[in-house]
Amino acid sequence: MLDSGLSTSGCKTCANNIPTVACIILHSIVGNICAVASSLNVGKASPMVHIGACIGAIMGQGGSKKFRLTWKWLQVFKNDRDRRDLITCGSAAGMAAAFRAPVGGVLFALEEMASWWRSALLWRAFFTTAIVAIVLRALIDACLRGECGLFGKGGLIMYDVTSANISYHLRDVPPVILLAVIGGILGSIYNHLLNKILQIYKLVNEKGIAYKVILACCISISTSCLLFGLPWIASCRPCPSNTSEPCPTIGRSGNYKKFQCPPGHYSDLASLFFNTNDDAIKNLFSKDTDAEFHHSSMLIFFATCFLLSTFSPGIVAPAGLFVPVIVTGAAYGRLVGMYVGFATNLNHGLFAVLGSAALLGGSMRMTVSLCVIILELTDNLLLLPLIMLVLLISKTVGDVFDEDIYNLIMNIKGFPYLEAYAEPYMRQLTVGDVVTGPLQIFHGIEKVGNIVHVLKTTKHNGFPVVDEPLLSSSPVLFGLILRAHLIMLLKKKSFLITPAPLGSDASLQFSADDFAKKGLGHGDQIGDIKLSKEELEMFVDLHPFTNTSPHTVVETMSLAKALILFREVGLRHLLVIPKVSGRVPVVGILTRHDFMPKHILNLHPQLLQNRWRRLRFKLPRLR
Amino acid sequence: MLDSGLSTSGCKTCANNIPTVACIILHSIVGNICAVASSLNVGKASPMVHIGACIGAIMGQGGSKKFRLTWKWLQVFKNDRDRRDLITCGSAAGMAAAFRAPVGGVLFALEEMASWWRSALLWRAFFTTAIVAIVLRALIDACLRGECGLFGKGGLIMYDVTSANISYHLRDVPPVILLAVIGGILGSIYNHLLNKILQIYKLVNEKGIAYKVILACCISISTSCLLFGLPWIASCRPCPSNTSEPCPTIGRSGNYKKFQCPPGHYSDLASLFFNTNDDAIKNLFSKDTDAEFHHSSMLIFFATCFLLSTFSPGIVAPAGLFVPVIVTGAAYGRLVGMYVGFATNLNHGLFAVLGSAALLGGSMRMTVSLCVIILELTDNLLLLPLIMLVLLISKTVGDVFDEDIYNLIMNIKGFPYLEAYAEPYMRQLTVGDVVTGPLQIFHGIEKVGNIVHVLKTTKHNGFPVVDEPLLSSSPVLFGLILRAHLIMLLKKKSFLITPAPLGSDASLQFSADDFAKKGLGHGDQIGDIKLSKEELEMFVDLHPFTNTSPHTVVETMSLAKALILFREVGLRHLLVIPKVSGRVPVVGILTRHDFMPKHILNLHPQLLQNRWRRLRFKLPRLR
Repeated sequence: MLDSGLSTSGCKTCANNIPTVACIILHSIVGNICAVASSLNVGKASPMVHIGACIGAIMGQGGSKKFRLTWKWLQVFKNDRDRRDLITCGSAAGMAAAFRAPVGGVLFALEEMASWWRSALLWRAFFTTAIVAIVLRALIDACLRGECGLFGKGGLIMYDVTSANISYHLRDVPPVILLAVIGGILGSIYNHLLNKILQIYKLVNEKGIAYKVILACCISISTSCLLFGLPWIASCRPCPSNTSEPCPTIGRSGNYKKFQCPPGHYSDLASLFFNTNDDAIKNLFSKDTDAEFHHSSMLIFFATCFLLSTFSPGIVAPAGLFVPVIVTGAAYGRLVGMYVGFATNLNHGLFAVLGSAALLGGSMRMTVSLCVIILELTDNLLLLPLIMLVLLISKTVGDVFDEDIYNLIMNIKGFPYLEAYAEPYMRQLTVGDVVTGPLQIFHGIEKVGNIVHVLKTTKHNGFPVVDEPLLSSSPVLFGLILRAHLIMLLKKKSFLITPAPLGSDASLQFSADDFAKKGLGHGDQIGDIKLSKEELEMFVDLHPFTNTSPHTVVETMSLAKALILFREVGLRHLLVIPKVSGRVPVVGILTRHDFMPKHILNLHPQLLQNRWRRLRFKLPRLR
Repeated sequence: MLDSGLSTSGCKTCANNIPTVACIILHSIVGNICAVASSLNVGKASPMVHIGACIGAIMGQGGSKKFRLTWKWLQVFKNDRDRRDLITCGSAAGMAAAFRAPVGGVLFALEEMASWWRSALLWRAFFTTAIVAIVLRALIDACLRGECGLFGKGGLIMYDVTSANISYHLRDVPPVILLAVIGGILGSIYNHLLNKILQIYKLVNEKGIAYKVILACCISISTSCLLFGLPWIASCRPCPSNTSEPCPTIGRSGNYKKFQCPPGHYSDLASLFFNTNDDAIKNLFSKDTDAEFHHSSMLIFFATCFLLSTFSPGIVAPAGLFVPVIVTGAAYGRLVGMYVGFATNLNHGLFAVLGSAALLGGSMRMTVSLCVIILELTDNLLLLPLIMLVLLISKTVGDVFDEDIYNLIMNIKGFPYLEAYAEPYMRQLTVGDVVTGPLQIFHGIEKVGNIVHVLKTTKHNGFPVVDEPLLSSSPVLFGLILRAHLIMLLKKKSFLITPAPLGSDASLQFSADDFAKKGLGHGDQIGDIKLSKEELEMFVDLHPFTNTSPHTVVETMSLAKALILFREVGLRHLLVIPKVSGRVPVVGILTRHDFMPKHILNLHPQLLQNRWRRLRFKLPRLR
């Protein structure tokens, strides 16, 4: 858990991690505060999303027994669906808190986080973020007198660029399109570089904790060297006469840092480097600072940010990508504004906003959620048409080259994240082509020894249950039973001596709570259950504990069609039944792993040579 | 088509209507312009959504042959999925254009319009509304010199209430909660009244065109009488001295209408009634008008708006509900502000915004989309936490009493709209309980006469195809064939003389275009196909034209589970297979109608007496 540097990607599969209170406190909160405070070029958004998702996961497993934080009423959430919903709502709340963007948080969870969505979830996520917004607003209100450090400053809108009379016309559109196209290319270069660097970091981090710390120290020291060294090469600029701010300043605040300059002069590069990321963004976004920065300083700042934001994530501390990309994009936008801005009405601050949008779109490939987040960050509704245009173009340009950054990171981490769309070659395969054996089947009344043997030798989480009726010649598919339920049966030892169903209902021995979804790492293992030799020779009636109506597909169904079913309904197991009955009534079980492109291409390597690859590079995947 | 008064509800099932160019031009555009111009209290949003959806539907059927508006490249959209996507994007565009709210349009389509959503659609809808925003912005730019009437005025933000220094504190929250609770109750009263009135109007409208016109005239005349009569009972108020606007005025524009008042005085009620809805909303939302209106005038205005907005929709002209609800809500909010506003920091204009949100939330029951639409209409980001709070409360309060307005209207119209959630009693039923016979089955090689007979005597759109293999004792489910494809087979007359499959592939006679989805009303009917007696005795091989992997469920599956599958995957037919094979391999077909609560309660009337009804009224359905 401690090395899950890139928190956001982890959240999509947070349900599969072990979210303990300790993990949250130690890792995300402390780690991220340290990372941001040590002036590493990392953000706070993704760790906050991670924290939110972890809190959701803890509630979904009924609290934490270890820390005695359990509530009775949390028990109702102990199932797959509610846990998934809670994690989604938690990540929405995290995003809402990080950027003070409640609606953006909901849409972020919808567009990027959740792999399964239902209409009820929209309303619940909205409820969560509304509470976040109201609490945030109340806290800001309580901190108005400046007793909470920097928290109360800035109000609800983080990078306010409101200006009532923004005007732009048709001739301003070509420079914006240029900015968006280059932004898309830069975004995919960023993704490509970050992907490579994270792969290298992964190799280093796997060698042990010492290597991790050394790597983090190296990055931290080189960052500090760059930040303190680079401002020396920038020239000093005379203080503007028409500003209300003090110039030059020494200390934490102020837009005009003195640094090495003579009195009456300031160093523009130092003003950018010696601020928090948030202040740097505010500075870059503000409108009356066209003359504040020099071309060369901005170029150096952009290059440094780009470099640092590729090297900083992935080290031991939890790191967000959002804020670094916004800073880099703002610098990029300012640069474009400086070179082509003379032809337009837009000031450099607006170019910086559009540059951030372009780099975010080119790297993260979201549309609606990014649009609303930028809107909520800057409160500039009049710029909306241009922001939408920029996001569209940069996303489209980026999609031509590679995948979005979250998918790349999940690939590195090996999370089996299932895309919502089917790859073209999946249409040429049937479900039967990817089912791999051997299939383990249980009978309706099964020998205890068999169950124990199968559970010990396989890692499957679901098993088909088949009956052999007396009247029919062919066996009948009775349903699907889960590993966790089998273990509970073995644990309670409700066994039969002979393979005949008991008159009374065996399920009366159990309560619904026995079959509630366990917290991860809290479920019983098959190895923990001790059974005597006599017990192993006994039988157990699986009928009352079997899901008698699992989702099934026929073996001739196209893989693409089955994938849609699997994703849209949010399944974990999909039974494959034969076209012609008479043989065994079930051909196999499909799980998420069976739909992963990697697995399929391993089974059918000839697909790699097929035209789908070429197609992929020719057409942007408009999803 | 001409009597589909409430356009928005129609759009959800627009694919099932016949959208011709004529329909759009005659009905929605001209009709709505006339209705709004005749000072009926109706809006323009829903008709614009309708127009957008119709344009999408026309593109989805390859243009209009009648008006010679066809393009070759539109043929690729001739299938269910693309047509549905186009209609969704069209309605998003309509909403975006009506309120100049591009992001709100996307979310409106997501939350209220589409019954089936996929991630690709989010991006396509965003693309559509981005184009709308850019074109709108360009047109506003071109109209800056005032050559386009009222269009260029107001810019991109329709009801601008930006104020940089809104401040509200914890003690402002209780009045806002009160406003939201009453707003939710008012919203559900509105829904209830409108539902009743629309049912009465439906009876009147069914009697003939003369009755329709008389009804419309009555409503129009009484509206005019009210609008001109009521201002007489309001008292005159002296003009404020500190205003920059002319007072009093006579004519179209101006906030202070003279009406019957002496010089130096204005009539506040006339100022509200004698404006367009948009100007009235702007007036009510603006912040420095706390003293402009009198309590009694506002109460009269609110009551009149509430009354007119329940009586005006449903007559022959297409009418939107959004704008009337916003006006009524704004008046309601002002009223609350007048009575309890002395205890808060919020001015009456902000109360009006919150009142609109409360009534919209209480009537339409959307969350995220309403929030973004209000944000885009008013450009007041600082108010967001309060707006979210109001929407949450009013929606929750409203949901306790009745359904949202669009569902009520769709019930009246009899559209088989399938909710995304399962009613509680559906969990107690199995799929087998709702399947109704008799089931029509075709054999793999079927006699032409049989097909013609079945197509003529039933209205089913899909039929299972069953094979009787030589080797197996029991028949095998081969797949599902559609009515449209059967008709195409009969039309092309690719028949066999004996019931033996042809050596060559019969499908070679057909092109993919033959099986493309036809425009509605353009498909062939079985009655149009003339077949000789000899041909009726021949056979047709259905195998090449059958969908060999339809989605199936086992007959013991819970109805709720099957509903989720049906809705999430977006099916039209769901085959029910028996638990124990050996008998017929298919038990029945489920279509949308089989999942409708009305149909199920007809089959199982005892469910009505069960506790689900009581449950329904006890718990708000948090969806």
